[in-house]
Amino acid sequence: MSNSAKAIGIDFGGTTIKSAVVQDGAVLERGEVIHTTAQTTAEGIIGELLRVIAAMRAAHTEIEAIGIGLPGFVDSVTGIVHELTNVQGWREVALVALLREKTGLRAAIENDANAMAYGEFLHGAAKGARNAICVTLGTGVGGGLILDGRLYRGSRLAAGEIGHMSIDSHGPRGVYGTPGDLETYVGNRQIAERAARLYKASRQQRTLEKCTPAELAALANGGDHIAIALWDAIGTDIGAALADGVWLLNPDTIVIGGGIAAAGDIIIDPIRRTICERTSTLFHEQLKVVPATLGNDAGIIGAAALALETK
Amino acid sequence: MSNSAKAIGIDFGGTTIKSAVVQDGAVLERGEVIHTTAQTTAEGIIGELLRVIAAMRAAHTEIEAIGIGLPGFVDSVTGIVHELTNVQGWREVALVALLREKTGLRAAIENDANAMAYGEFLHGAAKGARNAICVTLGTGVGGGLILDGRLYRGSRLAAGEIGHMSIDSHGPRGVYGTPGDLETYVGNRQIAERAARLYKASRQQRTLEKCTPAELAALANGGDHIAIALWDAIGTDIGAALADGVWLLNPDTIVIGGGIAAAGDIIIDPIRRTICERTSTLFHEQLKVVPATLGNDAGIIGAAALALETK
Repeated sequence: MSNSAKAIGIDFGGTTIKSAVVQDGAVLERGEVIHTTAQTTAEGIIGELLRVIAAMRAAHTEIEAIGIGLPGFVDSVTGIVHELTNVQGWREVALVALLREKTGLRAAIENDANAMAYGEFLHGAAKGARNAICVTLGTGVGGGLILDGRLYRGSRLAAGEIGHMSIDSHGPRGVYGTPGDLETYVGNRQIAERAARLYKASRQQRTLEKCTPAELAALANGGDHIAIALWDAIGTDIGAALADGVWLLNPDTIVIGGGIAAAGDIIIDPIRRTICERTSTLFHEQLKVVPATLGNDAGIIGAAALALETK
Repeated sequence: MSNSAKAIGIDFGGTTIKSAVVQDGAVLERGEVIHTTAQTTAEGIIGELLRVIAAMRAAHTEIEAIGIGLPGFVDSVTGIVHELTNVQGWREVALVALLREKTGLRAAIENDANAMAYGEFLHGAAKGARNAICVTLGTGVGGGLILDGRLYRGSRLAAGEIGHMSIDSHGPRGVYGTPGDLETYVGNRQIAERAARLYKASRQQRTLEKCTPAELAALANGGDHIAIALWDAIGTDIGAALADGVWLLNPDTIVIGGGIAAAGDIIIDPIRRTICERTSTLFHEQLKVVPATLGNDAGIIGAAALALETK
């Protein structure tokens, strides 16, 4: 799989687009960050992307390919972006064909959670894994699967939707009607609401804005009992969905990434404990549950690697 | 994958061992059925197996390999049976080495649910599938996965344990502590108990012995309201676990096999409906949910095919 040529990796987020020149899983140089707003058109963004790509190529003439991880429904085979989550104006955009035409380079697009999983698999926390479930925790809950040493995409290229697995058949319904949909418990907004509720119940005032994952992690690591209990409950919820994934896929590695993963052991420990409580020894005795190690670069690194694998 | 040589396929069950000479997915001739009891030793069974194998080889001299599907924890790579479910005396038996030595043929062992899934994939209901979840409903609930066109085994060769996925975080704990473990709702015994309870609640007397899947299926197909409601509830439970599998794996095919699958649409319909209710259009619009077509021969046919693939 490894290829030591240089490629540009791009992480297309809801508000910013980050990029870098990548070689052997290492970021050589970062591209200018592109900021998007609700008003930005697809054409406008593509123009900006081409400008940033050109600037990186001016500094690294031997770049061979461009890979982009995008949030939403993208077809990595045909190279078409069908629709993006939380980004307007991207319907049926033949992005790979366009990039190839405008740059003359090989290009690849991939779902962002898959790109992150692939980055962690080649160069991060899942390096050496044969079967890994990679979870990305943020506004939503994303996932990517490495099975038998390869990125697994599923029949409609949509596999890995851990965020919509059910953890409670009597629980609140998610956006697709699933009762107890994991995302309704552990998306960033839901975490903030749970936190604000807990603080209020113990007569402490804490606004939603002061309940970001980063602040709650700092509070917990500082010994705040409410924050500690909250992370334990969040980890239990995530672990419940992952335990089902462990029974089904019998992986050797689970990688926890994204914003709230920065909470460290406070979130990893209850996830690991819940998986152990709910599965047999064979399924968890050699299972590693580890935080992602590439941070925000996972998607960039994974997308660059996938681009080099295209023909 | 296909190989038109002849092989012996063996389905090692809790009370009977069935075998056949198989070619291209077709059963050419059946071996004598071996009946096992709690008193039968591993040595005794192996002796019987070798006798039945010899009889089949006498009739088909060009047999190239022997494959056995077994219920329990078997290592298809090393060829060692670690432990069998509901069969005593099989601890760390090097069955493949023994068969090779005694017969001079290539041999393979596999988990029985995996062998069935592989049989259905090559020659049955999952033929042509790229990604399939195969469920086997019986005393327990087993499963096998075909992913990217290959049998997926997992890191400890134990993948596909759909029967231990949780469908209710407040539900009864299964044998491994999982709350709402699917098997505690839809194993054959649990189905009989649910049925007896429902009939009792509506003042009809029906003993557990008269609540086998076959009798309950006949009752439902004959218009019995209680049996119809029961199958609907059972299908909903199975569908709840499978919906999680669909979000995670985005398969194109789900195969429902084993005893209770004989109930037909009465069980398939609520499974399909539940998956559709709990997943987005992309995940279910092209998903086939179909009954197994090879019946009791799936394991024999799959084991024979796996044996021919060994070197």
